[in-house]
Amino acid sequence: MKDNIEQKGGGRGIKEKGERFKRLDRIIHPKSLAIIGATPNPGKYGWLYQSAITAIGFKGNLYPISDKADEILGVKAYRSLSDLPEVPDLAVIVIPAPYVPEALKEALDAGIAGAVIMSAGFSEEGEEGAALEDEIRSIADGRIRVIGPNCFGTYSPKVGVTIIPGSGFSTEPGPVGFFAQSGGLTADLCQLAKGSGVRFSAAVSYGNGVDVNEVDLLEYFAEDKDTKVIAAYLEGVLDGERFFELLRDVTPKKPVIIWKGGMTEAGGRAVMSHTASMGGSRMVWDAIFRQTGAVRASGLEDMVDAMSAFCNIYPRSYPMSNSGGGGNIAMMGGGGALCVEAADLAEDMGLDIPTFPANVQDEIRKNLPPKGSNPKNPVDTGNPMIPPAVMTGFLETAARVDGIDYLILIQILFHIQMLFKKLSGDDSTPLSNFAFYPELSKGVKGVIEKYGKPVVCVLPRTSTTESDEDMELELEWRRARSAFIDAGAAVFPTMERAMTAISRVARYRSCLGAKGR
Amino acid sequence: MKDNIEQKGGGRGIKEKGERFKRLDRIIHPKSLAIIGATPNPGKYGWLYQSAITAIGFKGNLYPISDKADEILGVKAYRSLSDLPEVPDLAVIVIPAPYVPEALKEALDAGIAGAVIMSAGFSEEGEEGAALEDEIRSIADGRIRVIGPNCFGTYSPKVGVTIIPGSGFSTEPGPVGFFAQSGGLTADLCQLAKGSGVRFSAAVSYGNGVDVNEVDLLEYFAEDKDTKVIAAYLEGVLDGERFFELLRDVTPKKPVIIWKGGMTEAGGRAVMSHTASMGGSRMVWDAIFRQTGAVRASGLEDMVDAMSAFCNIYPRSYPMSNSGGGGNIAMMGGGGALCVEAADLAEDMGLDIPTFPANVQDEIRKNLPPKGSNPKNPVDTGNPMIPPAVMTGFLETAARVDGIDYLILIQILFHIQMLFKKLSGDDSTPLSNFAFYPELSKGVKGVIEKYGKPVVCVLPRTSTTESDEDMELELEWRRARSAFIDAGAAVFPTMERAMTAISRVARYRSCLGAKGR
Repeated sequence: MKDNIEQKGGGRGIKEKGERFKRLDRIIHPKSLAIIGATPNPGKYGWLYQSAITAIGFKGNLYPISDKADEILGVKAYRSLSDLPEVPDLAVIVIPAPYVPEALKEALDAGIAGAVIMSAGFSEEGEEGAALEDEIRSIADGRIRVIGPNCFGTYSPKVGVTIIPGSGFSTEPGPVGFFAQSGGLTADLCQLAKGSGVRFSAAVSYGNGVDVNEVDLLEYFAEDKDTKVIAAYLEGVLDGERFFELLRDVTPKKPVIIWKGGMTEAGGRAVMSHTASMGGSRMVWDAIFRQTGAVRASGLEDMVDAMSAFCNIYPRSYPMSNSGGGGNIAMMGGGGALCVEAADLAEDMGLDIPTFPANVQDEIRKNLPPKGSNPKNPVDTGNPMIPPAVMTGFLETAARVDGIDYLILIQILFHIQMLFKKLSGDDSTPLSNFAFYPELSKGVKGVIEKYGKPVVCVLPRTSTTESDEDMELELEWRRARSAFIDAGAAVFPTMERAMTAISRVARYRSCLGAKGR
Repeated sequence: MKDNIEQKGGGRGIKEKGERFKRLDRIIHPKSLAIIGATPNPGKYGWLYQSAITAIGFKGNLYPISDKADEILGVKAYRSLSDLPEVPDLAVIVIPAPYVPEALKEALDAGIAGAVIMSAGFSEEGEEGAALEDEIRSIADGRIRVIGPNCFGTYSPKVGVTIIPGSGFSTEPGPVGFFAQSGGLTADLCQLAKGSGVRFSAAVSYGNGVDVNEVDLLEYFAEDKDTKVIAAYLEGVLDGERFFELLRDVTPKKPVIIWKGGMTEAGGRAVMSHTASMGGSRMVWDAIFRQTGAVRASGLEDMVDAMSAFCNIYPRSYPMSNSGGGGNIAMMGGGGALCVEAADLAEDMGLDIPTFPANVQDEIRKNLPPKGSNPKNPVDTGNPMIPPAVMTGFLETAARVDGIDYLILIQILFHIQMLFKKLSGDDSTPLSNFAFYPELSKGVKGVIEKYGKPVVCVLPRTSTTESDEDMELELEWRRARSAFIDAGAAVFPTMERAMTAISRVARYRSCLGAKGR
């Protein structure tokens, strides 16, 4: 059975790597797109899909195919693919499973390069569905590339294509290429990543992977010039050996973050019912991570954190890889317990917060209150009300210290903003008037630009209820996060997540070093 | 030095346990309170403290002591303690360190039971401060109990006393008794806990612990009838042996959650500069956790999660401890990857999501869509749009299954609410009109009341930016969380945090079992 799949897989039918890349690139970033199963019926998948790509702003030519309407969502609809004024790059198929093979045949006959089949009801549903899936495989057979079935589609901010229900995803392209079988997970991840400043070159949910699978996508994103960081959620891998070899080749060139679902026995059983893949044992995957230097993640938040680490910390850390052990942190915060936590976490993760030389301590001490502060590193300002100029001054000083690889700031200024607002006695003044982050983020930007060192901001999030005051604080928190991200920093809500991010970058850098780069 | 401290410690001077409890109780829940260092000067600590307890609604008699004003924040001020119409339960001292010994002596002479010294500038500042601290110790000497110095005070929702800047803490008392040397950490924790539905009997920041320390507070909360769950952040422990023995006695009666800071070498160094305590080695603490059954936590969020587990999951799980292994979960979610993640996490944490018997599967299957769903457990509804009645029906069915200890729901309905709002074509309708949680939380409440089994809701939080739409989604998320908490459920934003919470309860229950309870 496995050999059979190997030979029939479309991508693997195309011998030439450059040709494989070009065909997949055209499908992932289509300039023209037909929706087979378009409908004026709100709530149906065809309608939802067209709404989503319209909302996000599809830049190419859109061709709804429907025998029920002449116009859908303000766009001229066509009866069939053969009526179109051009051959579109991509056909998106959103019709019930039994009708899919015929539609795919039509797309093939029309000369379309590839199809995304969103419809479910294939091998994940048992024998009948598996037979339908075999039919699709036979039709594709290296002649038309197929993403899916049983997926939510693809997301390309560059051309304005998105998955369901991704109408709210960022329209800004970026360095992360992501793929997963699961459509729901892909949608949740792209949504969650938005606020962390993580931007995508593309994201692909490939469902049952009848043709395009994890090997094709890893190869594609490795080749793609816009993609600097690759990330994947994997339930099963069809051809483990090929995937492993490819992974070993790619990781030294681009970091590859993998969340492997179904590592446990129980997880493996759940994978079977989800995407009918084989989970693969934990021991095998432990070895794969060890031998390839792929970065391990688990859970959506952790995945976004890892992406953020390789988008915002890694690029700035890279030129410095000769400056020492590669895991030295300078840190300033207001509060002793925060410093204790940071020190514990750093040591646990193989990082270091080295004591500053005496002259550096003297320089830092000048700006600290005489009582309750500590200039050694981690620098404790003694209280959380740290003026932006003091923080920026610290960053300047610490960035010049030889062997410091990462700079960390901890800021809990939102409650102090609220306090200042209350002290002002004027309830009508917006909370943002008392904000510190506009000034501080400018300082952060200056330091990053001047010294090229990565800055990590820890912004604890302590507003939690639905009260007006807490919602106002939450809005300020989000604004502050955006300001620091725009300044070029990586932002995390807890010290643990910040240290994990840094440790991932440090470990990846040391893997690169071990490989003689 | 250590023996010296032992003998001079106030609490330890009081031989009788009941008397120790009564005196501490009077200070932690004072019915009358004098502020030594009250001031009409906004922004000063004395003013901030009085503002905070006024805002939270102090129910007792308040006596600002000041030689600068006759009235502060609308309250009659007095020149000295001797002018007061009664002897207050507590004196809160917020004046510069050098003046503290004299003020404490006055409080002692006035017959006051205890003092909270917020002022900093003692042993954490070097020799001069250490001498002042010794002076305080000599004055106290079993005659007046002292919390602090170098702390942010105490929080008692029952009487309306709070720490700085805790004016926004919950006014509702609850089952958690918390203590930490660090004032900033105590403030952040109580703030963060608010939205998770965690409520406190009291929280005490005890700073340098010159008199009242971790042993006194553990003993106090163990005796206190309102406290059902004890939690602490510890940097150092003065008398390790006594603390260990007490901990071993208390854990079988009340769960004790401990976050130990300074477990690493680097963390230990940071502790020295923060509260001048000895950190204690990791190996010793590993043994303490193992031998006492204390629950380990690390980080603020993790601490709040552990509190939430023992407030909202544990009380309902306890009567069921004979129903099986104690770690069996029934779960419903919409999305295969979520089920895979849950299965992986459960196995990793020693929990089980056992396959339902055939008749239970048949009952559940009736309410699931025919395609893409899975009734086995974890139950995958195939898509995230799960009607509340289906979820409630599932809870009813699963709660009746023999040996099921915990029920989990995963709900990502906020984006679907947004979608429904958009489909409605009416932008002016508030998003809350499309909410599922009012109905679902009623169902959850019914099941909890009828079957007494703990329900855990996983509410992924995918709104992340400062856009109006995302802020509206965040507000809905918070409202949903409150609705489920009010219904008696525990709520977590990720599956990992939910499983960690359940595993803590399961482990604690099995410790109790091992001790023959």
